[in-house]
Parts: sequence; structure tokens; C-alpha cells
Amino acid sequence: MAIGRETVENLLKLTKPKWRTSITKVEPDRITTRGYPQEDLIGNISFSEMVYLLLKGELPREKEAKMMEAVLVSFCDHGVTPPSTQVARIMASTGAPMNTCVAGGVSSFGKYHAGALERSMRIVQHVVKEGVGSNGPPSSSEELKNSALMVVEHFLEKGKKIPGFGHRFHDKDPRPGKLIKVAKKYGCFGIHTELIVSIEKLLLEMKGIHMNIDGANAGILSDMGFDWKLGTGIFTIGRVPALVSHIHEENSVESSFRKFVEVEDIYYNGLESRNVDNDRNELNISK
Amino acid sequence: MAIGRETVENLLKLTKPKWRTSITKVEPDRITTRGYPQEDLIGNISFSEMVYLLLKGELPREKEAKMMEAVLVSFCDHGVTPPSTQVARIMASTGAPMNTCVAGGVSSFGKYHAGALERSMRIVQHVVKEGVGSNGPPSSSEELKNSALMVVEHFLEKGKKIPGFGHRFHDKDPRPGKLIKVAKKYGCFGIHTELIVSIEKLLLEMKGIHMNIDGANAGILSDMGFDWKLGTGIFTIGRVPALVSHIHEENSVESSFRKFVEVEDIYYNGLESRNVDNDRNELNISK
Amino acid sequence: MAIGRETVENLLKLTKPKWRTSITKVEPDRITTRGYPQEDLIGNISFSEMVYLLLKGELPREKEAKMMEAVLVSFCDHGVTPPSTQVARIMASTGAPMNTCVAGGVSSFGKYHAGALERSMRIVQHVVKEGVGSNGPPSSSEELKNSALMVVEHFLEKGKKIPGFGHRFHDKDPRPGKLIKVAKKYGCFGIHTELIVSIEKLLLEMKGIHMNIDGANAGILSDMGFDWKLGTGIFTIGRVPALVSHIHEENSVESSFRKFVEVEDIYYNGLESRNVDNDRNELNISK
Amino acid sequence: MAIGRETVENLLKLTKPKWRTSITKVEPDRITTRGYPQEDLIGNISFSEMVYLLLKGELPREKEAKMMEAVLVSFCDHGVTPPSTQVARIMASTGAPMNTCVAGGVSSFGKYHAGALERSMRIVQHVVKEGVGSNGPPSSSEELKNSALMVVEHFLEKGKKIPGFGHRFHDKDPRPGKLIKVAKKYGCFGIHTELIVSIEKLLLEMKGIHMNIDGANAGILSDMGFDWKLGTGIFTIGRVPALVSHIHEENSVESSFRKFVEVEDIYYNGLESRNVDNDRNELNISK
Repeated sequence: MAIGRETVENLLKLTKPKWRTSITKVEPDRITTRGYPQEDLIGNISFSEMVYLLLKGELPREKEAKMMEAVLVSFCDHGVTPPSTQVARIMASTGAPMNTCVAGGVSSFGKYHAGALERSMRIVQHVVKEGVGSNGPPSSSEELKNSALMVVEHFLEKGKKIPGFGHRFHDKDPRPGKLIKVAKKYGCFGIHTELIVSIEKLLLEMKGIHMNIDGANAGILSDMGFDWKLGTGIFTIGRVPALVSHIHEENSVESSFRKFVEVEDIYYNGLESRNVDNDRNELNISK
Repeated sequence: MAIGRETVENLLKLTKPKWRTSITKVEPDRITTRGYPQEDLIGNISFSEMVYLLLKGELPREKEAKMMEAVLVSFCDHGVTPPSTQVARIMASTGAPMNTCVAGGVSSFGKYHAGALERSMRIVQHVVKEGVGSNGPPSSSEELKNSALMVVEHFLEKGKKIPGFGHRFHDKDPRPGKLIKVAKKYGCFGIHTELIVSIEKLLLEMKGIHMNIDGANAGILSDMGFDWKLGTGIFTIGRVPALVSHIHEENSVESSFRKFVEVEDIYYNGLESRNVDNDRNELNISK
Repeated sequence: MAIGRETVENLLKLTKPKWRTSITKVEPDRITTRGYPQEDLIGNISFSEMVYLLLKGELPREKEAKMMEAVLVSFCDHGVTPPSTQVARIMASTGAPMNTCVAGGVSSFGKYHAGALERSMRIVQHVVKEGVGSNGPPSSSEELKNSALMVVEHFLEKGKKIPGFGHRFHDKDPRPGKLIKVAKKYGCFGIHTELIVSIEKLLLEMKGIHMNIDGANAGILSDMGFDWKLGTGIFTIGRVPALVSHIHEENSVESSFRKFVEVEDIYYNGLESRNVDNDRNELNISK
Repeated sequence: MAIGRETVENLLKLTKPKWRTSITKVEPDRITTRGYPQEDLIGNISFSEMVYLLLKGELPREKEAKMMEAVLVSFCDHGVTPPSTQVARIMASTGAPMNTCVAGGVSSFGKYHAGALERSMRIVQHVVKEGVGSNGPPSSSEELKNSALMVVEHFLEKGKKIPGFGHRFHDKDPRPGKLIKVAKKYGCFGIHTELIVSIEKLLLEMKGIHMNIDGANAGILSDMGFDWKLGTGIFTIGRVPALVSHIHEENSVESSFRKFVEVEDIYYNGLESRNVDNDRNELNISK
């Protein structure tokens, strides 16, 4: 039996692909990621190289691979001070599953927490590519320093913090200095990181404020060619192991459904006593 | 001025610590993870070693470090077939932030998706520690094979799948064979993995079903001394980079708020037309 | 042009429906929920009736509609003491979007927090339908009391709490008494709620423990014919407005990224100082 | 024994309140929301009134209470076409818990999905309060129409959609007309809704585009005095019952872990075959 063209085209319309990808191809008994059969990747490349391959579509050279290790290690953990860690542990205390608690922690990265890396990457990538003001992209070390100054003045005028600088728990974050050293060692210190360093120099003189770990990573990841839109994603990859560790600690060491807040510690504002019947009468609400 | 003891004790009661940890200590300008200053870890250890340090509290020896790389690489990605990847990409299409989409993917690991690793670890750790039935822990290769048989029979009788075996897209998952080889190379093939291999041998004979990547990892991670309660957490660490990659691909390549389902493709059951006024009259509902 | 049958069948195979539903039909310019055009529902039924219609597939009679209002109101809020509220507010403090914070709160309902309603519904529905032990379903008031005793003994023997009874902040939860009264008024006090009341009577005598709001709702919702699998869902519907309110309060009143924990308030266990280089030498790790 | 002032102050410093609220006060055996004991609210006010009380801090008058019912009903469901519903159901298929699936759905509200209400509220509240351009707030019907024109021109010039207008599945969304009628009936049609109606009139003439349900609600909720920052929150309250219903349907009707995508339906771009060893040699990567 044969069927008319129109019918087939209508059927075809229904079948137009909803899903396509260039990351991993799945065939029966064969899984190929970025062109490599996965069984060839297992045991042959490091996890950091895998991260790089997934995000950039190709394997890193050795130096970039080493740099990637340092970048991911640098995001590892900040104890129980970050809101994301508190959220993950409070959720664990209710008996929520491990992955739900990790998701809770990851969802807690907002504008003020972990958002600085991406915003800092966006700024340095913009300045390097487009320049600030009407000057066009900086083409000398002098122009880069000038760009740094314009960035600093822009933020100071608005009374805003520059993402990637300053830390609420540290005067001088102990991590960025080491990471910058590693970047120099592995040839990953380029114009973006130079811009970050120039901004720090100015901020330090003017306000006594140092670069933080997000600032250092913003420069380095940009010099490695990562799109700023991947900033929060890369931070997330680096921080998830700590979330898993904290959730496991909460589950292993603390008692279930413990009280994080005692009723005596809660303050109430303006909760004067009211009477429903009176108020509904006054509002003329029928029952 | 002096204040009475009781008052102080009441104050102290309020201050009893809600937060304690053995993972990372935060002091001004100093962050120490598992005893190591973070600036000493950055550039000195790999990301996989960091994962190991966070989860186990100590640095791995070289062979375990290499094994950890392979384990994490083995979880990397399965294209757009897993529900978690679909969820992450559908969320991205709505304009939700990167980390929210990652969290959505991670939240999608349920009993049937990614839950097999933890359940498989639990089974092999239980069998090795407690034994099956009344026999006590297996103390010879023969007893281990016997335990494997009892596990298989237990599940087959109940008509249930054994977690860690079989795959809905592959007859023979291409990953576990390679991972087992790596485990042998690095001395991480022990009694738990042997049990998994014995179960596979039986299942293969009886049902033609192979081990999958969760089964292989269940054995190996157990032999490396990881608590089964960390199973889903370790899988999550390994899978998050792929989620980030897929979300970035969705955002870069596909159009915003695209339709994943066409209205013509939806089927409706039993949605016959009703009339609110008629039905409310019939139910005697006053307006 | 004509095309062969096989080709068409292959095409058809691709088009088999992935999505079907009996809840809402979407056609161009027409949205029909459970058979009713939505424009006929808007302004004609209450939100609680809509909840009932969505969950049960039909409109409630007037008494059930009134009961539904009381049930949903009874779940409304418990201030800042529940982990879900703390999570939602901590997330808000990071600048995360409103809906992400609501999702964080909702994800925090675990076994120990808000899980009691569903578990309590499951127990009473099981007892009423199947009975306890070998006695079969209770068919008289006397048998129901006996079932209550068997339930209580079962839990006490295991040293476990009975879900729906006891509250960590109240000796006598002020809500269930009123809700039970409302249930009697609206004819929604049936065998399941009777069982809950019988259990409370025993627990009160034996242990001085009262019913909590989950216990009362477990009985009433079961008597209204709700599947126990909807327990957490119905609680969620009732609690979401409070989460929205708390997140809005956090955003309006508190400063962004405030510290929920002071570093001085954190206690550390067993975090003795270590040296990476020494330890790596000892572990024979090559660089 | 007495203790010095300084010690006490240090102790006090630790106890400064981290948690305060004006929503609900929790005391032993007493829970008071917005000043009302909860047992007086249960059975006395409707769920919509509770929503209003939680969000605004006071009970609504009768007309506002009726309007609130209609608003919340109007958000109820849009079948399986919204990404949030697809996400919730895909998550349910993995065996994830009910509340996790609801959270997944709620997390899926992004800029393009459900974000229109809040953005539309923001626009109309801004125009009414501040005016557009340099004209100041509109003080006559004529000026309001002029503001509407300026809003429309602003968006058309940028080639952007105006939030609250147009629908990807409907030419004429069937819901807003009815909701506007209800708003007039209950005295909730004010200047903000008038602005929305004026914008629609212009858009209809110029582009044939109608108001959607978000547009109508943006006007009405603004006329009821709701802060635009509550937009997504109120939508969430209205939509959660449908998510619960869809998740329950998925769990009841569909088989676990079903395939939402067939491997044959996935398209791959640029995934040419590669060889790890070759590529690593070329990159000079040592093993």
C-alpha cells in the first residue's frame, strides 16, 4: 500500500527533532563523548581533563590541564560559612536525600554568593574585547592600566563593590596569590589576569581591598578561553564535592531534625494580638 | 559591674554551637581543609585528590588517586537520554540561571535514575560485612560465589532488577569492562568487585544481562572504602560537569523557550466536556 | 510521489505520543481543565475548589469544599522554626530568585520534616483497608480501638515515634483540636479520623503525647478520599504561601548576604594542622 | 561566683538574633500568624484569605477576597505544554519524591516562563508611580493612554515583546477577558489594569496581539496593592496544585523511568570520531 506525500509530510512534521547535541552520542553498546569512545577516556584522562573536554569540546594541552586542576581545587570549600553549605546541611537534617541536598546548595548560589566569578569574568572579557568608554580594546600595557582605572572609578562612583575583590571573612584571601603563581607557571597568565592584577593594585592603594579567589579565577579562566557564561557552572563543579562532604558529615555526626534555631532566639516585630471575628465584622465579611 | 552565674549560664545556653565541622576551618586570612592550608593544596594536588580528601578526610595514595580519576571520568555523560539532562536543558530553555538548571538536573536523580550505584554499594557492603542469610560474612572465594548466587536468586524470585546490572540503552555497557581493568591495574579490585563480577557471571548465564557502570563502580568504590551513603554523592560529582556542558549548549545553540512538545503530539484521556453551572447546581453549591 | 508502508510505519514509530494527560487540554484559544473551560472556572469556584478539582478530577460538594479550606489553612506557617523556612530565607539572602527560594524550601521537606502527614495517611489507610496483623479490616468501633492499640504497641516496641503525634515545639499542638471540630461540622470525620483519635487517646494515657496537625489532617484527608501519595503534595500546596511571604520579608527587611553564622560560633573537631609536602612524600606520590 | 562585664558582653555578642519575623510567632502550645491565633483562622477564613493575610499582613475585605480566589484560579494549569510541568513529570518518572518534583517545576520558572507577570507588574507600577519619559505620573485618562503608547513604542523600537501580551499557543488567551470582568465586579479594576487595557488596544491595532493571563493579573494585582516583587511568588502559589496533580498522574498512570526521548530521535552535530592516544601524543601530554 502506498500513502500520499502530504500525509507523510504531516507525519514528518511531528517527528522533527526536539533533541540534538554535540556533546555525547549514544548508540547501542557505544557512548562517544566529543568524538572519543568513553572506554578510551576512562583510565586515560584525568577528571579535570574530562571537565575541560566537556566544556570546551577538545582535550587540553598539558599546561592547561594542570591549570584546570588548580582552578577546581581553589573553589573547594569554605567551611560552614557559605549560605549554600548551611542550606545543604539544614536540608540534610530533615532526612532529604543526598542529591536533593546538593541541589539545594547549588540553588543557593545567587547574585551575592558565587555570582561574583561570572560577573567578574564578564567585566574583564568585555573590557579586553570592547574596551571601556569610547577607547576601544586596550592595546598596550598602559592602556590596560587605564582601563583598570576606568573600571575602578565606574564602580566607586556608583558606590558598588567590584566583583572579584574583597571578602567578608578575610582582609587578604589566602588563595588568589597562590593561584596567580600557578597561572604564571603554566602559561595561563594573560591579558585578562593582568587586568585583574591592575584593578587590585588600584583598589589596594585607594581602599585597601585585595583580590579574592573569584577575581583571580575570573582572569585565569578568561585567559584560558572560557566563556563568562560558564563562570557559575565551573564554580559549581568545583564546589559540589564539598557539599557532598558536608551533607555526609551532617548525616553521620549530627542528630536528625536538630533545631538550628531556638524559639528563645527569635525576635518578633509588630505582632500585636488580633481577633479574627472582630476584624471580619469590621471588614463586613459574611461567613 | 558583675553579673550572676545563672544569668551567664542562661546566656551561654543561647550560645551553644549550632555549627561544627571537621572539614574546613575558616579564620581571618586562613582557610584550612582537613588540616591543610588551601594555598598549599592549590597547584599541589589534583581535583580528584581534592574530592578524595574532602570525602575521606585524608589524601589518597597514588594508586587510589589514579583510580579516583577513572571513577569520576566513568560517570561523565550519557548524552540527552537521561531524565536529569533533559530536565536541566528544559529548565535552561526558560531562561533559568545556570546553577538552578544544574540543581534541577541533580534533583532528578531518583530511585530509577542514578540510584542504582548507591543501592548496589549497599548490597555488596552488606553481603561482605554481614553475609546473606544465616551464613555470616563470606570467608572464601567459594563462599563469595555462593553469596552471589543467593543475591541473584533473591532478586529473581521477587521479579526485581538487581541494581548495577542491565541498561535500558545497551546490551553490554561499554564502560564497566574498562573500569574493572583499571581497578586491577591500580590494586582497587577487591572482594566487593569480585562479588559484582560473580553476580554478573550468574546473571549472564541465566538472563544474558551484563554489569553496568554503576555495578562496576559499586564494587570498586566499596573496595576503596567509601561508605555506600556516598554513592549518589560521588555520582553527582562525576555528572555535574556534563550538566553544565549541556546547559551551556542549550543556551548557546537552541532558541529560548522552544517547544519541547507540540500540542498536536499530546493525547488526552477522558476529558469529556462539562458545564460548571450545571455541576454546581447538582452538587447544591451556593455561590 | 508515493512512499512505502514500511517507511511510514517507521515514521509513525517516531511519533508515538510521549505526553498524555487527563488534567488539562490545550487547544488554540481554549483551555479545558477536567472538562471545564477555564474561563468558566475563573470567578466561579474558589481556589480550594480548584485544588480539589485538580487533585480529584471533580468538583467538591459544598461541605468538602469548606473542609478543604480549613485543611489548607491549617498548614499555613510555623514561623522561622522549620528547616524549610530557614532554607528559603538563607537562599533569598544570596540574591537567588523568588521561585528558586520557594523550590529550596519545598525541597527541604524530608522524612523528618513534613513527611509525617504522608506516612500517617499511609498507616491509617492501610489499617482501615487491610487491618493490622491477621485480623482483617476493622469492622466495628471496638475493632478499630483494637487496631489503634496494635499500631501504638508496634511503634513503642520499636522505640519509634508514630507519625502524626508529638511536636518538638508544643506539648499540645493548638491546631488539631480545632480542625477535628471543623471536620465534624462538615461531615468529614470518618473511620480514619476516628482511628487517629483512638491512637491519641492511648498515646496520651501511656506517654502524655498529643496528636499534631499532621495526624489530624492524615485522618481527615483520608476520610475525604485522598490517596496517601498526595499527602506531601497537599502539605506543599498549603505551605507555599508562607514560603513566599518569608522570602519577601527576608528581601524587604534584612540586608543582603547577611551572616547567619559568625565564625566565632563555629566549633571544629579534630582539625589538627598537616603539611601537604610531608604527607605526599610519605604516601610516595610523584608530582 | 561573679563574672566580668566584658565576658558577658562577648557572650552577648554571640547571641545577637539571627532570626526575626513579623509573620508568625511560635510559643509553646501557641502559634499566632499576623496576630491571629491559628486555631481561630482554621475554619474561619478561606485559603485565599490566608494567602492574602500572609502576603499583605492583614485580612482582605470581602471583594478583595473574592478577587484573590479568581486570580489564583486563573493561574491553575496549562496542561503538559509548560516546561515546568514537563520537568516535574520527567523528575517524577525517575522515582524522585513528590516535593522534589514540585520544587523542580517551581525552579523552572525563568525569564521566559512565568517571568512575564512580575515584569509586567513592574512596568505598570513604574509607569503609574513615576510616569514614562519626563512626563511624571499620568494624572488623567488621556495621559494614561499616552503612557501606554510610549510603553508600546519603547518595546516595538527595541523589537522586544511586551511582557503580559501574546501567547505562544493562543491567538486570544481565553482567560484574561473573564478575569477583567471579575475585577470590574469586585472593584479591583483600577489605573494599573486600565493601563494594561490601553496597551492591549494599541497592540491589537498595530500588531493583532492580545493581552494574556499574566497581563491581566499584572494590572489587577497591582490595583490590589501587591508589590511587583511578589509576582512570581503569587503565580507559584497558583500553579503548585497543578504540579502536584501532574506528578501524581505521572506516578499513577505512566510506567517508571519511561523514555521521553528515543535514541533514533536524537540528532548529532559535528561529532566526528577521534582517537585519544593520537590526540594526546599530538598535544604532548605525558601519561
